[in-house]
Amino acid sequence: MPEHAKGAAPLWGGRFSEAPTGDLARFGASLEVDKRLWPHDIAGSKAHATMLAAKGIISAEDAEAIRSGLDAVGEEIASGAFVFDPTVDEDIHMAIERRLTERIGPAGGRLHTARSRNDQVALDTRLFAKEAASGLAREVRALMAALLERAKAERDVILPGYTHLQPAQPVLLAHHLMAYFWMFSRDLTRVEAARHAADASPLGAAALAGTTYPIDRQMTASALGLSSVIPNSLDAVSDRDYALDLIYASSVVMAHLSRLCEELVLWSSAEFGFVTMDDAHSTGSSIMPQKKNPDFAELVRGKTGRVYGDLMALLTTLKGIPLAYDKDLQEDKEPLFDAVDTATASLAVVRGMVATMAVNADRMAKAAGEGLMAATDLADYLVGKGLPFREAHRVVGSLVARCVAEGKALDDLTLAELREFSELFEADVLSWVEIGSVVARRRSAGGTAPEALEAQFALAEQLL
Amino acid sequence: MPEHAKGAAPLWGGRFSEAPTGDLARFGASLEVDKRLWPHDIAGSKAHATMLAAKGIISAEDAEAIRSGLDAVGEEIASGAFVFDPTVDEDIHMAIERRLTERIGPAGGRLHTARSRNDQVALDTRLFAKEAASGLAREVRALMAALLERAKAERDVILPGYTHLQPAQPVLLAHHLMAYFWMFSRDLTRVEAARHAADASPLGAAALAGTTYPIDRQMTASALGLSSVIPNSLDAVSDRDYALDLIYASSVVMAHLSRLCEELVLWSSAEFGFVTMDDAHSTGSSIMPQKKNPDFAELVRGKTGRVYGDLMALLTTLKGIPLAYDKDLQEDKEPLFDAVDTATASLAVVRGMVATMAVNADRMAKAAGEGLMAATDLADYLVGKGLPFREAHRVVGSLVARCVAEGKALDDLTLAELREFSELFEADVLSWVEIGSVVARRRSAGGTAPEALEAQFALAEQLL
Amino acid sequence: MPEHAKGAAPLWGGRFSEAPTGDLARFGASLEVDKRLWPHDIAGSKAHATMLAAKGIISAEDAEAIRSGLDAVGEEIASGAFVFDPTVDEDIHMAIERRLTERIGPAGGRLHTARSRNDQVALDTRLFAKEAASGLAREVRALMAALLERAKAERDVILPGYTHLQPAQPVLLAHHLMAYFWMFSRDLTRVEAARHAADASPLGAAALAGTTYPIDRQMTASALGLSSVIPNSLDAVSDRDYALDLIYASSVVMAHLSRLCEELVLWSSAEFGFVTMDDAHSTGSSIMPQKKNPDFAELVRGKTGRVYGDLMALLTTLKGIPLAYDKDLQEDKEPLFDAVDTATASLAVVRGMVATMAVNADRMAKAAGEGLMAATDLADYLVGKGLPFREAHRVVGSLVARCVAEGKALDDLTLAELREFSELFEADVLSWVEIGSVVARRRSAGGTAPEALEAQFALAEQLL
Amino acid sequence: MPEHAKGAAPLWGGRFSEAPTGDLARFGASLEVDKRLWPHDIAGSKAHATMLAAKGIISAEDAEAIRSGLDAVGEEIASGAFVFDPTVDEDIHMAIERRLTERIGPAGGRLHTARSRNDQVALDTRLFAKEAASGLAREVRALMAALLERAKAERDVILPGYTHLQPAQPVLLAHHLMAYFWMFSRDLTRVEAARHAADASPLGAAALAGTTYPIDRQMTASALGLSSVIPNSLDAVSDRDYALDLIYASSVVMAHLSRLCEELVLWSSAEFGFVTMDDAHSTGSSIMPQKKNPDFAELVRGKTGRVYGDLMALLTTLKGIPLAYDKDLQEDKEPLFDAVDTATASLAVVRGMVATMAVNADRMAKAAGEGLMAATDLADYLVGKGLPFREAHRVVGSLVARCVAEGKALDDLTLAELREFSELFEADVLSWVEIGSVVARRRSAGGTAPEALEAQFALAEQLL
Repeated sequence: MPEHAKGAAPLWGGRFSEAPTGDLARFGASLEVDKRLWPHDIAGSKAHATMLAAKGIISAEDAEAIRSGLDAVGEEIASGAFVFDPTVDEDIHMAIERRLTERIGPAGGRLHTARSRNDQVALDTRLFAKEAASGLAREVRALMAALLERAKAERDVILPGYTHLQPAQPVLLAHHLMAYFWMFSRDLTRVEAARHAADASPLGAAALAGTTYPIDRQMTASALGLSSVIPNSLDAVSDRDYALDLIYASSVVMAHLSRLCEELVLWSSAEFGFVTMDDAHSTGSSIMPQKKNPDFAELVRGKTGRVYGDLMALLTTLKGIPLAYDKDLQEDKEPLFDAVDTATASLAVVRGMVATMAVNADRMAKAAGEGLMAATDLADYLVGKGLPFREAHRVVGSLVARCVAEGKALDDLTLAELREFSELFEADVLSWVEIGSVVARRRSAGGTAPEALEAQFALAEQLL
Repeated sequence: MPEHAKGAAPLWGGRFSEAPTGDLARFGASLEVDKRLWPHDIAGSKAHATMLAAKGIISAEDAEAIRSGLDAVGEEIASGAFVFDPTVDEDIHMAIERRLTERIGPAGGRLHTARSRNDQVALDTRLFAKEAASGLAREVRALMAALLERAKAERDVILPGYTHLQPAQPVLLAHHLMAYFWMFSRDLTRVEAARHAADASPLGAAALAGTTYPIDRQMTASALGLSSVIPNSLDAVSDRDYALDLIYASSVVMAHLSRLCEELVLWSSAEFGFVTMDDAHSTGSSIMPQKKNPDFAELVRGKTGRVYGDLMALLTTLKGIPLAYDKDLQEDKEPLFDAVDTATASLAVVRGMVATMAVNADRMAKAAGEGLMAATDLADYLVGKGLPFREAHRVVGSLVARCVAEGKALDDLTLAELREFSELFEADVLSWVEIGSVVARRRSAGGTAPEALEAQFALAEQLL
Repeated sequence: MPEHAKGAAPLWGGRFSEAPTGDLARFGASLEVDKRLWPHDIAGSKAHATMLAAKGIISAEDAEAIRSGLDAVGEEIASGAFVFDPTVDEDIHMAIERRLTERIGPAGGRLHTARSRNDQVALDTRLFAKEAASGLAREVRALMAALLERAKAERDVILPGYTHLQPAQPVLLAHHLMAYFWMFSRDLTRVEAARHAADASPLGAAALAGTTYPIDRQMTASALGLSSVIPNSLDAVSDRDYALDLIYASSVVMAHLSRLCEELVLWSSAEFGFVTMDDAHSTGSSIMPQKKNPDFAELVRGKTGRVYGDLMALLTTLKGIPLAYDKDLQEDKEPLFDAVDTATASLAVVRGMVATMAVNADRMAKAAGEGLMAATDLADYLVGKGLPFREAHRVVGSLVARCVAEGKALDDLTLAELREFSELFEADVLSWVEIGSVVARRRSAGGTAPEALEAQFALAEQLL
Repeated sequence: MPEHAKGAAPLWGGRFSEAPTGDLARFGASLEVDKRLWPHDIAGSKAHATMLAAKGIISAEDAEAIRSGLDAVGEEIASGAFVFDPTVDEDIHMAIERRLTERIGPAGGRLHTARSRNDQVALDTRLFAKEAASGLAREVRALMAALLERAKAERDVILPGYTHLQPAQPVLLAHHLMAYFWMFSRDLTRVEAARHAADASPLGAAALAGTTYPIDRQMTASALGLSSVIPNSLDAVSDRDYALDLIYASSVVMAHLSRLCEELVLWSSAEFGFVTMDDAHSTGSSIMPQKKNPDFAELVRGKTGRVYGDLMALLTTLKGIPLAYDKDLQEDKEPLFDAVDTATASLAVVRGMVATMAVNADRMAKAAGEGLMAATDLADYLVGKGLPFREAHRVVGSLVARCVAEGKALDDLTLAELREFSELFEADVLSWVEIGSVVARRRSAGGTAPEALEAQFALAEQLL
């Protein structure tokens, strides 16, 4: 509700014979949404009052009255004692100012000197975004830590690595979990960038053009812990990039979570059976006693949609609107709040799942063993014995065909059976095709071999 | 919260040592969102109980107890007396059933016979969607009526018709308003299609595969005013197309409103000055006494984003999820509710603006006169006098250049001045280039001439 | 490229000292995209010329010259002989008119009488959309037919029905396939609605306000097979709802295909093993000889994104633009073409997969048998013998727990073992819990029992 | 087309009786899209060959043959001499390798040692993204420079500053243009972040699990100018965040451009008349000689949709797909290419408009003068003379009402007229309310006063 005070006849009613009422007032109101900005609104106003007094624009007494009045109003809101008046409190900024003036009288009116609703709203939303970004970053980091911890705890577990959801080559579960660790580390970068984008003060831009009062914008910025002052007043009141950035960062978090949750749902299925979700992260059925549903993984996956929707919402709202402040911008808060709330909560839920799920190492190993996934290595073996690669590939192709036909795994074959295909096979081939050997052989940097994994752990620890 | 009763140990707790609690329970809960489905839940349950008794599956006494119990619960909710228990009422369906059983004892438990949360939720959401579509259609129709009425009232007002926001040819304001009438008439078609999509009963699909009880699905469908029975139980519990359809219809409504509101904002600007918004649809500024802002038009335009976002949200949620019910589907309700609420409220707000705005016919006429918009007709005049079109165009081109240079409108020119350019100009040319004549000449079907407009009115009245 | 002829000095260059060239001309050009509209452009122009002659606006000779000239130009394009001139042919409409005039001289110039690029472009795009909708509908119907045929061929195959991707209750594969049949039947409704939306003629709206010529709009509409004439000229040139409707219909088609393809990918996995994709619909790996990847199912699932993106693109473009024609609208064609092309091609690919995939009925049946999915029916058995439901549920709960502990399916249990849990179990229970019996018992309308399925087939055949 | 060579029987055909052909092959092919990656593919392959030789995995001779063969193939492609074979060249990677082997024989086959299509595709796309980000950053910077230059050139021009598109307070045009400068400076940050995200090497991840060969990943990374090596092989082949980041950065660029273009369209309107677009950035009409349309501004605004659509496309594609490589990921390139191409070209077009448009300073000044925008300052004047603010506001309110009634600007009033409202007005008030004074008074940091503007210029120059 920037700039003006709808419904509040005294403030701008002069030219108006009628103010929006009833349905219209409700349509225009944002109190239900922006209510949660109250701590930021109070912090911003206190810093503003202090600066006004320091610059001699208001008296020290007024500033003190304003500050203690605002503290008292804040306590009322925190305690639930604050009574919102829907007929005049169209947004949280109006509500606080109205109540302040009730409490301290005319001095309350001086708070709005050299300030407009436009820069005030922008300030409050930035303070919120900065704090919310910190909270989101904390949860990203916590999930990364949980993934790393779990990965370290499952150092020996082997499961099939998939491409196209087909078994491709065996990998360590730890390696698989660490793939997500690195995904989320990129989210951290995006969230930090969004936090940085929010970290600048619009206060002092006033309605759109700056103010005639001798204010000190750097002083309020510093008092509020903001790193810089936005260098253009028109931009200060119309910029919502920081909100976009945070919603975008949340969207990519959700994209990543949706991939992890898809795997948790798959792995929880009877057919995969790789993990068993903790009871606390599952639900059952009133009519099917055998059911244990990975509801939370599905719900997080489903919530990806709403965050993508939040991104599209704000992008659309910003499209094609002229400078400077337009009422359209009131629509920035709901997508911002929803995106960051959803991503933050989803990260915590997934962290819980990662930490508590039971890993069925036998099922994983069995699947890894059955998948003929050592075929590449078997060909490499023959190449090592001097066979040209193309010939080696043909030999192994025949072997694989036989295994498929007989329903056997590669390591079910005896040396004698192997030698039917090539005389080059010797006793050492039996250990060569063991899944553990196959994994251990992929020692290239970032590969799945245990020693490469330890290097990964070291890097990851450094990062956290 | 389909299928199961999270947190409610008695219902499916047998296999579980722990149920989701605290943050997890909150994350999974949907009560705050789906609460408003209560009238549909009660209606659906009453119809179900009646059918169960009719088919001999429960006793007539139980059915009667259930029905009157549900009515009593409904009254509690409507009056605000109902006390939700956040520890067990995870969704509105659970809350109502819990309370019913408290009131009528074991008979309450029989209500869930031959039914599952999955088909129950699908039913309630469909009943909501059908009703909401009716409400949306009503508002679309009301806006169409307001546009038609205003158009009829402004039969004589001429304004510039624009392409590329450049004056192109003069048109009647009524014709311009009627362009929106027809836009919204297409919305009506989409909303009706969405309503039709919702109008089918999933009840009896049970969890996913149908039920072993000898139910009569047609009977419950008829009792609830639903036109048909969904022919496949898996589809019945996993289909959300009707929600998509209604969100899409709402999205196009908003696209249209955003275009109209863009014009109202433009027209309210000092530079255009074509309309003055009613005070009730405007707001002022506490620090700039001269301001009168078309806030509501901007707000509607801005809200377009959230509805597009709702559409993208549900489309994303549905992408790539397997049959039948997945928990992801719990995320269907918020975008549906938000889209239809926003579109319905926005239509009403815009209707108010259309009905009450003051039309500044003089400013419109002045702009129409200044725009050299009769140039095409002036060339046609010469063609009518026998000049080849290409030559006529050249002559008028020179005339236009002179007007631009001298800052004149075409009808500022005297006959003598015109004849400097061509001897073919005669006295009748002066009335020929009057804006009114230019408008009146476009008599083709759907054109802007008054007689074509009357035909449009007739068609429009027929439609409403 | 409506309204004007960019780069083509003669047509509107009078006021201009410079025309867009080089990068700018390329940026503004749409020829590469709209080239495919050529058959519609020629059809529309022929109808227009015929009408102009019929109304005496041009001579019969000119009309005949135009028609045969257009036919010749069409043949040039179809045969590949047409040489586009990038310096003047900025769009297909300009290219055809330029070539027509080269071939037939001044008569070519008369074709544009009583017409503007604005209504011409709208007409061509509508003719395209109508035809494309028919093609899309054809492919939807073909997939429905393939699903029905396959369902009928797999009448006896049982697989687990899933909720939350956990085995819930056994269903017939045919029932599962038919769920998709009904999904796609709703797509048919949406595609037909989009086709209907396109089916109206904008021709005669001219630039935006209608024309001064005594044209007959109904005549051209009829000649082009269009059902009606758009009643408002401003709306006629600025409406793109029909494009939105077709992109939306394509989006929901893709949403449905993404669900089916997700299942085909899952079912093709080693862990599920329910189906084996035809070789023609699979790919292998150069380094992993054992791989057989369900690439096409994944690719269709992946392409869902681009169609959703197309929808968002056009919705965004339309947001907040004023009447009537704006250049923004040139951006309508790429999303429209891409969405309908992608959906049409994807439907054909998926139809091929459905028709040719090998169903591994044994794996499905095994999974259905292992899943303890008869638990609900076992409880019902006891209820039938007089045990209260709650007690029956408890008994079965214990049974299930034992099966889970011992890794047994319910029908692995002997009568003696069952009777350890309840004396009410008698010999008939052994057939009662057979998966086939469980399926057959769900006889409710739309249920999975064979007889309910036959009713579904009958309904489906009626629909096709 | 990662991992496999579709249609190319020799490479993986062993298990397959049939390969995708015709429509299927076309559906799966990506050559038309990924063709432009050829320089990156060749660079990547050369670096890989060099490393393989350095590590003794292939011979120095083979490496040399590969490198010079690749150079020759590159020249063929660059010159247009390369003949693509649609039956086997499904993607650019296959095409180049096929041709290489034709040219240099068996050594060509050794290039693929210790590499897979999966890491190769990821590498090429990253190299493209990094280069494209640089190009995009260059254009962002060029637009910033053009804005700064124009701003400096228009130091004295005053226009109305708007909120809600209503005149609010006068501002310098330079200040208004600088608002966009800062907007785009944030885009630079996002583009640089996206460039950084792309700047890491996946090469050596092979199919998904790393390789058994003793490769040196750091060596190839360095040779290609990539700053780091991706630490996890699964992540390396499945990460597409860098593409998302670049599409997102492009989306926000377009959001900003859409706002600027909206203003350019408004300002070009007859009603505003603030700017006249250069002829090269305008188009006319063949039938309306008076038209001069700001087509390019509209087209850029319209293209915002497609870039938002690209973002939604890739976000959707990534939702819910399991690790590691899935064929869905083939859909990453089109949205990436389209978004970055569109944003880069749009920036250049808008830069041209900003540099060449004619500023109609008189129209701007006139609008600034008419808007009663000095009202706030008039009240401040009275406060300065000792009147309480509330009383001052009331006095000015009455004054404004009189101006509105009489159609006067504030500075049309004589001192005598002013003194009718308050005796406090003295002669100095006449210069006080001059628009220039009003602007000059807003000296707060980031305000619109000339001295604040100079500080802004200094900051901006530092940034560039």
